[in-house]
Amino acid sequence: MTDFSTRVGRINDLLCSVNLLQWDARVTMPSGGAATRGQQIATLKGLAREMILDPALRDAAEATLLDAATEADRRAAQAVLDARDYHAAIPARLLQAQTEQGAPAGKAWAEARRTADFALFRPYLEEAVDLAREQAEALGYADHPYDAMADLYEPGETAASLASLFDTLRAGILPLLDTVRGRPAPRRDFLFRTFDVATQQRVCHGFAETMGYDFNRGRLDTTVHPFEVSMTRNDVRITSRWRPDYLPMAIFGTLHETGHALYEQGVDPAFTRGVHATDLRLLYAVGGTSFGMHESQSRLIENHVGRSAAFWDRHFATLRDAFPDQLGDVTVEEWLAAIRHAQPGLTRVESDELTYDLHIMLRVRIEMALMDGSLKAADVPEAWNTAMREDLGLEVPDDGAGCLQDVHWSSGYFGSFPTYTVGNVTAAMLFAQIRADQTVGPALDRADYGPLRAALADRVWRHGRSRTRAEMTGGPTDPAAYLAHLGDRYA
Amino acid sequence: MTDFSTRVGRINDLLCSVNLLQWDARVTMPSGGAATRGQQIATLKGLAREMILDPALRDAAEATLLDAATEADRRAAQAVLDARDYHAAIPARLLQAQTEQGAPAGKAWAEARRTADFALFRPYLEEAVDLAREQAEALGYADHPYDAMADLYEPGETAASLASLFDTLRAGILPLLDTVRGRPAPRRDFLFRTFDVATQQRVCHGFAETMGYDFNRGRLDTTVHPFEVSMTRNDVRITSRWRPDYLPMAIFGTLHETGHALYEQGVDPAFTRGVHATDLRLLYAVGGTSFGMHESQSRLIENHVGRSAAFWDRHFATLRDAFPDQLGDVTVEEWLAAIRHAQPGLTRVESDELTYDLHIMLRVRIEMALMDGSLKAADVPEAWNTAMREDLGLEVPDDGAGCLQDVHWSSGYFGSFPTYTVGNVTAAMLFAQIRADQTVGPALDRADYGPLRAALADRVWRHGRSRTRAEMTGGPTDPAAYLAHLGDRYA
Repeated sequence: MTDFSTRVGRINDLLCSVNLLQWDARVTMPSGGAATRGQQIATLKGLAREMILDPALRDAAEATLLDAATEADRRAAQAVLDARDYHAAIPARLLQAQTEQGAPAGKAWAEARRTADFALFRPYLEEAVDLAREQAEALGYADHPYDAMADLYEPGETAASLASLFDTLRAGILPLLDTVRGRPAPRRDFLFRTFDVATQQRVCHGFAETMGYDFNRGRLDTTVHPFEVSMTRNDVRITSRWRPDYLPMAIFGTLHETGHALYEQGVDPAFTRGVHATDLRLLYAVGGTSFGMHESQSRLIENHVGRSAAFWDRHFATLRDAFPDQLGDVTVEEWLAAIRHAQPGLTRVESDELTYDLHIMLRVRIEMALMDGSLKAADVPEAWNTAMREDLGLEVPDDGAGCLQDVHWSSGYFGSFPTYTVGNVTAAMLFAQIRADQTVGPALDRADYGPLRAALADRVWRHGRSRTRAEMTGGPTDPAAYLAHLGDRYA
Repeated sequence: MTDFSTRVGRINDLLCSVNLLQWDARVTMPSGGAATRGQQIATLKGLAREMILDPALRDAAEATLLDAATEADRRAAQAVLDARDYHAAIPARLLQAQTEQGAPAGKAWAEARRTADFALFRPYLEEAVDLAREQAEALGYADHPYDAMADLYEPGETAASLASLFDTLRAGILPLLDTVRGRPAPRRDFLFRTFDVATQQRVCHGFAETMGYDFNRGRLDTTVHPFEVSMTRNDVRITSRWRPDYLPMAIFGTLHETGHALYEQGVDPAFTRGVHATDLRLLYAVGGTSFGMHESQSRLIENHVGRSAAFWDRHFATLRDAFPDQLGDVTVEEWLAAIRHAQPGLTRVESDELTYDLHIMLRVRIEMALMDGSLKAADVPEAWNTAMREDLGLEVPDDGAGCLQDVHWSSGYFGSFPTYTVGNVTAAMLFAQIRADQTVGPALDRADYGPLRAALADRVWRHGRSRTRAEMTGGPTDPAAYLAHLGDRYA
């Protein structure tokens, strides 16, 4: 057990160091450092992989499995063996091909997007699909090659389970969207006034603290694409962005990353570097028990709390004090209507709570079809544009604003998109259960978030990766609570 | 050769990642991250040590030694074998003891310094001396145990060579100090006015650029103790500090670290991660070919350039424009006299160019005597106070302002102090040689630093660790040029 613990701890230290190398590359590194930084990250990841594949680790994990004092220890050992199986299954040649494809594919994608010329990216997309299919074959799957990819990010979900989930959601969301379309749009002019960036930063820092983010174990920086990353539970950093001409970007971006950060900061301190299952969360460079569970925490804070009437009844005065010239003529009711307003748009990352999942679904449908061969890469633009027309009622003017908008496929990522929607669904499941509590519900009504945090910590955060998402939510992925939430908000 | 190169490159990537973990800990890390960061650094250093001790690396280095295409390659292989010998010589038990001593000794030292109570620190100093003596025995030495420690930081120097160097320097410096003491002090009131910190930062950023520091491959941050650290030649960072009530601190601190950074940024790009000797500079966590050579570059920029009349003839206007209220009544001659003024003080880090080496010498004399057993730890305060009286003419009020002022001994470092003086001497040797050049000299007179940089790059920077200090300066450590420089400035 000690040998096992030491070996896992060292792998974690390496992978958490990779997290810092990556945070630094995005936040503080001078531009000249890019080339050598990539090499450093590759070296540390390669060392971690060698340590995971070391037969002595397998022996230590197997001994722990036989001899585990607790269920958490047993799961830790099993997770290591699973990680080993994963890395052993991927041939070195495939790993090499995926690594080598990254930079040229990323460059071609950026150029294709800039010039809205899908043909430039098509050969790289074909190669990425081929590599993903090869990866799925290497990993194995029961029914559909997408099962292998979904399992990497969201254990327990399959192509079939996701298709069923999405069908139910789509059937619930499209009528709500029709309802919203039939209503006059609320007043929104004030969202687009000029907002001093330093004041935005100060206000968002305060909102993160209000939600319970511990700045002694974190920091808030500026990046083009906001993210959260952990070096350990003691050092969990978030970033946000500040548009001088559109205020909600900063507020909800910060609250979103704060939700991710609360999860990481809330892991049981005993798990920091022991043998507990949390130690293993980075074996796949994944935070929390799954991507979807992680996303559920960010969406819970962003949407269920951050877009609630109770939150703004209490905090709108703070915001108006910070921006008296911009928000002096706005009531809290107008503010709330504006930040909840739903309207179909072409771009996923700018979409609202109601239409977001439609963007996800069309991507996942395309990914599945690419992976089972029923769709050719060359036909992706047409499939994309058709779905945008049918689901969102929009014509795509060009592929730059359409199927080239996301970086994921150029990085070789297939299978992570569903976790956004799984996160939305899981957030609603958890929130409905927790707010039914006699203490939490009334506290939420007066914007007191201590009881909510205590409940989330108890049910989710502290367990790190030692429980599955289904164990934390009490059952399989069920969209009922999410559709009820959207119904409350948009019907 | 390829195997050798790959192995060395990986060790370098690990150790450069350690540099980032340390930079981050001092500049950006939230305070809560300290405990787990220490563990991460220990893991990465431990892995690097294992990789250095891997018999396969020894085999690859020996094959390269026999088969080297160039002298640089041969030296790289030899440096790896030397590093291996070093790490193999230190018993794991000693390494463990030194690691474990660090935190409690540091804590005891901080408390002892705060309360000026040497007795609190004495047992830790005794243990640190015992461990250093054990280390010297493990490494081996010809005449004096201090030889083994000096060789770690300044290859080629010994207790005897340093004693001889210091005797000559002391004999030259003490009369100059007498001369200075006999003169009226220059006007210095304006140094202590109130200087806006943001303006100091802007001005110092500009001076660093003027000296040639490339901000595309670097950045300037704020720390309590300024330092320079490299992640590779493409990412060389410096820090400085900004006292609102004393302007020279920021300017000369920044110029000092800029000198260190120019060395690192100036290494031949081919050395970035190949098999060249530079790759090995981090095997002992040492930058450049020696500590003294590194310090020579910082002192050259700080003192020979930064305190020169030519520099301020050209740049004092910039400074006065930045601080018109504070420096409007000051002439460039008054400024120059003030920033060169020498005056004995109790504190090494606040001492001037003329008295600095006297502070070093008294420390090195004590270190040598502790290591050969002729001085007991308990008698350090008396030895310190006697030297301060004899060399600097000062009474030490208490041990907090005396022998407890530096952190080095509590960290177990013995043998690095001489490199400060070696740096001063080497800077003067190099500067005298280079300024004799028909292009460089006249350029320096008009504060044009391109030719100086070209000469330093050619002679020192680009070679990284592939040449020794003596090869770069053309001979053994000779204090003549340094004494001549001090004479010019202070006689």
